[in-house]
Amino acid sequence: MSDRTPHREYDVLTLGETMIRLSPPHHQRLEQASVLNLHIGGSESNTAVGLSRLGLRVAWVSRLPDNPLGRRVVQELRSHGVDVSHVVWCREGRVGVYFVEYGPGPRGINVLYDRAGSAMSQMTPAEFDLSLVARARLLHLTGITVALSERCQQLVATLLEEARRVGTARSFDVNYRGKLWSPQAACSALETLCQELDVLFITQDDARIVFGCDGDAEQVARTLKQRFQVGTLVLTLGAEGAMAIDASGQVHTAAPIETVAIDRLGAGDAFSAGFLFGYLQDDVALGIELGTSMAALKYTIPGDLPLVDLADLEPLIHGQESSGIRR
Amino acid sequence: MSDRTPHREYDVLTLGETMIRLSPPHHQRLEQASVLNLHIGGSESNTAVGLSRLGLRVAWVSRLPDNPLGRRVVQELRSHGVDVSHVVWCREGRVGVYFVEYGPGPRGINVLYDRAGSAMSQMTPAEFDLSLVARARLLHLTGITVALSERCQQLVATLLEEARRVGTARSFDVNYRGKLWSPQAACSALETLCQELDVLFITQDDARIVFGCDGDAEQVARTLKQRFQVGTLVLTLGAEGAMAIDASGQVHTAAPIETVAIDRLGAGDAFSAGFLFGYLQDDVALGIELGTSMAALKYTIPGDLPLVDLADLEPLIHGQESSGIRR
Amino acid sequence: MSDRTPHREYDVLTLGETMIRLSPPHHQRLEQASVLNLHIGGSESNTAVGLSRLGLRVAWVSRLPDNPLGRRVVQELRSHGVDVSHVVWCREGRVGVYFVEYGPGPRGINVLYDRAGSAMSQMTPAEFDLSLVARARLLHLTGITVALSERCQQLVATLLEEARRVGTARSFDVNYRGKLWSPQAACSALETLCQELDVLFITQDDARIVFGCDGDAEQVARTLKQRFQVGTLVLTLGAEGAMAIDASGQVHTAAPIETVAIDRLGAGDAFSAGFLFGYLQDDVALGIELGTSMAALKYTIPGDLPLVDLADLEPLIHGQESSGIRR
Amino acid sequence: MSDRTPHREYDVLTLGETMIRLSPPHHQRLEQASVLNLHIGGSESNTAVGLSRLGLRVAWVSRLPDNPLGRRVVQELRSHGVDVSHVVWCREGRVGVYFVEYGPGPRGINVLYDRAGSAMSQMTPAEFDLSLVARARLLHLTGITVALSERCQQLVATLLEEARRVGTARSFDVNYRGKLWSPQAACSALETLCQELDVLFITQDDARIVFGCDGDAEQVARTLKQRFQVGTLVLTLGAEGAMAIDASGQVHTAAPIETVAIDRLGAGDAFSAGFLFGYLQDDVALGIELGTSMAALKYTIPGDLPLVDLADLEPLIHGQESSGIRR
Amino acid sequence: MSDRTPHREYDVLTLGETMIRLSPPHHQRLEQASVLNLHIGGSESNTAVGLSRLGLRVAWVSRLPDNPLGRRVVQELRSHGVDVSHVVWCREGRVGVYFVEYGPGPRGINVLYDRAGSAMSQMTPAEFDLSLVARARLLHLTGITVALSERCQQLVATLLEEARRVGTARSFDVNYRGKLWSPQAACSALETLCQELDVLFITQDDARIVFGCDGDAEQVARTLKQRFQVGTLVLTLGAEGAMAIDASGQVHTAAPIETVAIDRLGAGDAFSAGFLFGYLQDDVALGIELGTSMAALKYTIPGDLPLVDLADLEPLIHGQESSGIRR
Amino acid sequence: MSDRTPHREYDVLTLGETMIRLSPPHHQRLEQASVLNLHIGGSESNTAVGLSRLGLRVAWVSRLPDNPLGRRVVQELRSHGVDVSHVVWCREGRVGVYFVEYGPGPRGINVLYDRAGSAMSQMTPAEFDLSLVARARLLHLTGITVALSERCQQLVATLLEEARRVGTARSFDVNYRGKLWSPQAACSALETLCQELDVLFITQDDARIVFGCDGDAEQVARTLKQRFQVGTLVLTLGAEGAMAIDASGQVHTAAPIETVAIDRLGAGDAFSAGFLFGYLQDDVALGIELGTSMAALKYTIPGDLPLVDLADLEPLIHGQESSGIRR
Repeated sequence: MSDRTPHREYDVLTLGETMIRLSPPHHQRLEQASVLNLHIGGSESNTAVGLSRLGLRVAWVSRLPDNPLGRRVVQELRSHGVDVSHVVWCREGRVGVYFVEYGPGPRGINVLYDRAGSAMSQMTPAEFDLSLVARARLLHLTGITVALSERCQQLVATLLEEARRVGTARSFDVNYRGKLWSPQAACSALETLCQELDVLFITQDDARIVFGCDGDAEQVARTLKQRFQVGTLVLTLGAEGAMAIDASGQVHTAAPIETVAIDRLGAGDAFSAGFLFGYLQDDVALGIELGTSMAALKYTIPGDLPLVDLADLEPLIHGQESSGIRR
Repeated sequence: MSDRTPHREYDVLTLGETMIRLSPPHHQRLEQASVLNLHIGGSESNTAVGLSRLGLRVAWVSRLPDNPLGRRVVQELRSHGVDVSHVVWCREGRVGVYFVEYGPGPRGINVLYDRAGSAMSQMTPAEFDLSLVARARLLHLTGITVALSERCQQLVATLLEEARRVGTARSFDVNYRGKLWSPQAACSALETLCQELDVLFITQDDARIVFGCDGDAEQVARTLKQRFQVGTLVLTLGAEGAMAIDASGQVHTAAPIETVAIDRLGAGDAFSAGFLFGYLQDDVALGIELGTSMAALKYTIPGDLPLVDLADLEPLIHGQESSGIRR
Repeated sequence: MSDRTPHREYDVLTLGETMIRLSPPHHQRLEQASVLNLHIGGSESNTAVGLSRLGLRVAWVSRLPDNPLGRRVVQELRSHGVDVSHVVWCREGRVGVYFVEYGPGPRGINVLYDRAGSAMSQMTPAEFDLSLVARARLLHLTGITVALSERCQQLVATLLEEARRVGTARSFDVNYRGKLWSPQAACSALETLCQELDVLFITQDDARIVFGCDGDAEQVARTLKQRFQVGTLVLTLGAEGAMAIDASGQVHTAAPIETVAIDRLGAGDAFSAGFLFGYLQDDVALGIELGTSMAALKYTIPGDLPLVDLADLEPLIHGQESSGIRR
Repeated sequence: MSDRTPHREYDVLTLGETMIRLSPPHHQRLEQASVLNLHIGGSESNTAVGLSRLGLRVAWVSRLPDNPLGRRVVQELRSHGVDVSHVVWCREGRVGVYFVEYGPGPRGINVLYDRAGSAMSQMTPAEFDLSLVARARLLHLTGITVALSERCQQLVATLLEEARRVGTARSFDVNYRGKLWSPQAACSALETLCQELDVLFITQDDARIVFGCDGDAEQVARTLKQRFQVGTLVLTLGAEGAMAIDASGQVHTAAPIETVAIDRLGAGDAFSAGFLFGYLQDDVALGIELGTSMAALKYTIPGDLPLVDLADLEPLIHGQESSGIRR
Repeated sequence: MSDRTPHREYDVLTLGETMIRLSPPHHQRLEQASVLNLHIGGSESNTAVGLSRLGLRVAWVSRLPDNPLGRRVVQELRSHGVDVSHVVWCREGRVGVYFVEYGPGPRGINVLYDRAGSAMSQMTPAEFDLSLVARARLLHLTGITVALSERCQQLVATLLEEARRVGTARSFDVNYRGKLWSPQAACSALETLCQELDVLFITQDDARIVFGCDGDAEQVARTLKQRFQVGTLVLTLGAEGAMAIDASGQVHTAAPIETVAIDRLGAGDAFSAGFLFGYLQDDVALGIELGTSMAALKYTIPGDLPLVDLADLEPLIHGQESSGIRR
Repeated sequence: MSDRTPHREYDVLTLGETMIRLSPPHHQRLEQASVLNLHIGGSESNTAVGLSRLGLRVAWVSRLPDNPLGRRVVQELRSHGVDVSHVVWCREGRVGVYFVEYGPGPRGINVLYDRAGSAMSQMTPAEFDLSLVARARLLHLTGITVALSERCQQLVATLLEEARRVGTARSFDVNYRGKLWSPQAACSALETLCQELDVLFITQDDARIVFGCDGDAEQVARTLKQRFQVGTLVLTLGAEGAMAIDASGQVHTAAPIETVAIDRLGAGDAFSAGFLFGYLQDDVALGIELGTSMAALKYTIPGDLPLVDLADLEPLIHGQESSGIRR
């Protein structure tokens, strides 16, 4: 049983790559843009920001070049209270970049990654201060890091193993990215890594694409829970809300919240933040409700980060949609 | 009977506070904005602009500091033809500011007022040239001014009394603001002030919150009409349109017009302008139709001001929604 | 029978006026805008850009003053691969301008033309190198050019006659503009010009307004096909999709594609580009499908130009709406 | 002797064309701009705004189409207190447009006029209410209006003649525009019109180009004063300041004020406003000092309009350059 | 002798008001701006950011309302590594705002304060955790805080007294603001507070205006050093550089660095940061050199904050002006 | 002797890497920017655009990934008339990116390259259609391409050798980039490549840094001309203008033109374009004059591209600086 008592220094420790996101404003195509909006984004740091804003103590680790772009990433995360003091700085290497062309249907949202060879993808287990793991109640990782490089895959394996050893809860979000690796490669790598986790997040789409799990939501959730022997399996269902099966086998569901999508990126990470907030209070039901609320609010906010506070969540939790004017 | 003959110098005289409105562009949160859009807004001046653009002669009175922000307010109102020559200028004091964070549901629109101690809130009856009242066919005031300060409440009372004395029609919009005062305070202050008005505007929500009037629309309207002994009671119903009961007790209704909300602020004030335009022609049916049209067009225009001309209203009045391209 | 073999130098030759388009950002009214977005637009050059991006060889001819605005038009078209080497440059004259006020319903989109006396409207048949017509497989013209001036009407007649003479396919889009001429003037001028074309494009609205053809779509299409003795009649139906009757009398229909309108201008021209791409492969069914897809994608792109590539069309043709995130 | 007593209704009456000015931001070339800044500008209305802001009562007359651009012009002038109630509205016609490409040396500032056929250029003397002339203390006109069309030239002649008849002071700014007419045409037209004016403004460059007056400033000023038999001759000297010879033959000079040019357009019109303010107090020395100060401040303000108040001028008049921070 | 040994938890503790700064872009006047740039600024937090970026451990204390504006201030300071954990949050009260109209000479920079009644101005000594003072090597305060309110003046006195008691070095910047108080009020309040400080910063202008000290720089510095019995007196000379007289009476001077002013606000605070960095290494000569370099770099950066790192300072310290392109 | 007769298909053939340039607006630091301006830039394509706009026939070759960024590069170059039909498209690989932080002195301009592993740097000689070389009158290359990779160095060697073989004039710009390679590596690689060129461009700084040539300008030029046995040696002198020694040994100099730097990047490439325009008319004196004029105009234009036409150059060549207003 993992040690989730609050006396540890950090509530959550996470690791991952955070990139510079560049997106043409006002639904322009990349080819016609004369300015690009600049945000930062990375699955794990998105979640870290969400958790920190909800009041948890979160440390985010990464490897970044000591240049204005690397410092920008760190400054923005620090502004939200995330502990960035364990970031590994390097002289060489680059910050990954991704371009987001944001169009309504039928155009859709197209992400153009330019992240090969980033400083983070070159990180080795030796560069990570393993003692950090025992200082946190929960370790949160994602499949994106595994996809970055062999080094990163080893790093993830090392961290998960250390967490098991020191009794830190282990949370993992599959987060399959078709532009980074194939379903086969993902399946093969994650099959081992995801065994016996405390929390496993996966979307219904990824369950089908990566692990070939089709069918009705509960069936998919039960299959994956058993296949990976995880404590709590969290299945997000897009427009259908979310479902969790907790360690005792109980099913929790949350209905989706209607919203207008200003920026859909980072909604899954916002969900994870909301869920882990509840989970760390041993309240999976609250977690899935907060996760859904966080994701819905994230939809309405430009950029990848869930710029949400507890006060913003309250009306949603009490079923008061705030479509009105508060004045 | 009030004197609504056109031979008076002004069609409408109004008084109120107008503020600098600052809002992050593109649905950003306030904390992430690096620029803010600047508009001006105030319930009474919004209505004044609407009336002036429809061709009426409107004077707007307020108290403003003689600094660039005060002059900005006056210049913008004057650009729409509103008579601002009776504004009281002062050396000290500030222009109120409000920040509008505009998010789609479930985030909603949040207004952060920073208006305490504004120059207008310090205005005394002695500063107002009472002779103005008799030079106008109709006096239009709102509950916001009453909420600003005791001085302002006295000013409102003085003006209403003078209007009664000189036979100027008296129009009043309850316009309850929960961030300015409590429902109890509003109810207590307005109970007296609103007696025997020629026109009383109120939203269905405010009827419930401030005066505890619940139930179906017509019932609410009739109750309030009787309680305050007003000539014409105008009840706006949000997504359900609007209803008016005129002096003869006849009920007029207007169906809502479907629209896409670009900026919802000022829609109620636009409604008032449209309604009063009809009312001053002794045509309540036209008034409620124009009010609904003005409000719908306001929804599509950034800022608080109803930048609408008679030509814009024509297609709506004739039932031609202009969703097409006119070229 | 027209010669549509690919061995000619150009796939499509077109002629028309292209203007500077100025539009207030963010749904502002013209009177409140402090900046205007600058695009270029013209029905024929919009279509030319669409065709060129799909891989066809397209020449666009016009008459432009040799000033920064004229050069801007040419540079932007050239950037998309359109051959602009036959443009006629003049010392005097102006580039037409149009202002677009873009509001959601019930405001709608209002176009304010300021195009009188443009250099193009002064073009004479003598200025056009008639030998170009025989170097193209298809000549595409629109009713807008006819409406510009008598000179332009003569030019259109001359080109159509030459195309008939040298066996170049003749395509024509009625494109009625109520701010340029009356339905009577349009009907009278087009009645003769449109006889025996290979392709005639017309919207259901224009069929009614200009030619008095009412009724169900197929009936209108058949009536017009017969009245003008055209090869292929293409009737666009707005929210109802499109219909074509080919030379053999076969009816082809395409269902509309659901979309969110970011910018509706140029959608008809995008449709023409998609249709002609199929038509030049002797595949009217493909044409009408591509036309509908091009128009739907154009709706999502700011400006008049269909910034679409073949790769963008593929998911739509295969029925995969790309409302998701590709990453 | 003209009647400059303040008891007339207006201090200054002026007439002219005001246009929409479009300029690429940030020193871009027109061909690379994706947005254009929108201002309004016209020599006479620039001066009118300057005078109105200094506290004078100014009426500006023009002919404008009743469309959003025409209304924009009127609204902006009205916002500064200029009386626009005598503007002649027409159904047809256009508002002139000019594009300003603003580059530092050696590129310089290039103005591309697109003003042919504007509504104002079609104005006839019959459309002007001649009774206005006698209601103003001073009539201010410029050579630009003369250059617009023969109709406008007649209008100018009519107004000057009427002013002479009713004893209204007559002020005229030569304001030669090489893109509108030739020096010969200007010389020939102005030779007659400028006789016996009360005030004639001319730049040293125009004196040379149009009237062939070369040599040292005072010599040029004396020559022109005598040639046109004007009361006060005002010669602006660019970087050398300005000089005036008043009715008594006394020479007044003002040294130029060092400044950084943010926007040079409209500086001459700002000068005229400053000068006339002094002139209408019978103080030519003050006029030339205020004119120079107004021009210097205009240099620092974006757009054509002199957004200057009396309070801004005080430090300059007292020799206190405000390069510091006032906080 | 104060305890400046590095073993204390913070290198520098500071306290002050930080406001929202709103400024029209591109040298616009406030009345013509449709957007405002948003920065944060406050003398003490500007210095805190500078110090933190140079690597020191800095705590900044203030009183802020728990609303989006208050959180914005804290987030931005935290992004630069400043410790904001001791900020006092309150339910009521406002964040001060100031408007900056930035014009080149002769217009100059005009600051319009709207800061009355800010949450910080209501702070009481009881709200400040006095134990913080002993945890820092140096306490830095400014005259602005003294000017805010009587409460704030008491708070400053309390902190300075506590610092004396626990051996924390005391640094004070006079920073006279003519829009907050009169020279007489400032002189009277500061005469007592500034006695026996370790470091006193003052500009040559303030020395004259507040304390009536005129004459050559060294004379002024010596006079003030003696009058207030301060350890190190730092006199900044604007375009003439800076001068310090250290505790031993030695004079250090730094020549000014030529620069182009993009934004002059915050330059004095940047100077203080650079100076204190040297001072805390017991190197006044380095301090004055770094101060001058920081101020010069601040001039080139938009906003109030000195976004400067040690690496940026190196070329300046080694006399290498970086006017070239580093690529 | 090279064949510079105009009967060849292209006047100039060039090859190089073109990147996406991202720069914070308004002198912001990268860390504070919320939007970035997007331009494209590459030494050889900058020169190609300059030459094409002056009327020459220019082909530019590169290797680009077939994604929106690659297409953007090609579209923008094509818009200026550059022939891009020989670009080699690839599935994999990236477009290089560089960030430009533009500050006035003493901050200076800092370029952050993120170009490692670009598609162009992977180009092999086998991918280049060597027959192109004989179709051009002149081949223009730069040292930047040599610095990209060994493959690129071989490609440059192959092209130069082919040019020698087929009698195509060979022009080379040293263009040393300290962030790409060391002076030693550059010296060693270029020593061989630059032998017996027809034209060699080098800055005075690069002559010193790379080849150790110090001393007065003519001495440096003569030394390099002899060392590399080049036909025409062109030495640019920054603020001192430029100098060329032609094949006959004659010295040509051009004085610098005073300007205000809006954007200094690409000025050297603009110079090369101007020079080669003269050189291809066998007029080195004209070349050096045009080069200096092109560079001066480039300084005033945002972005890397010399958006200059022959008409813009005329006033400069005739010594007429256009600091005035042309209207």
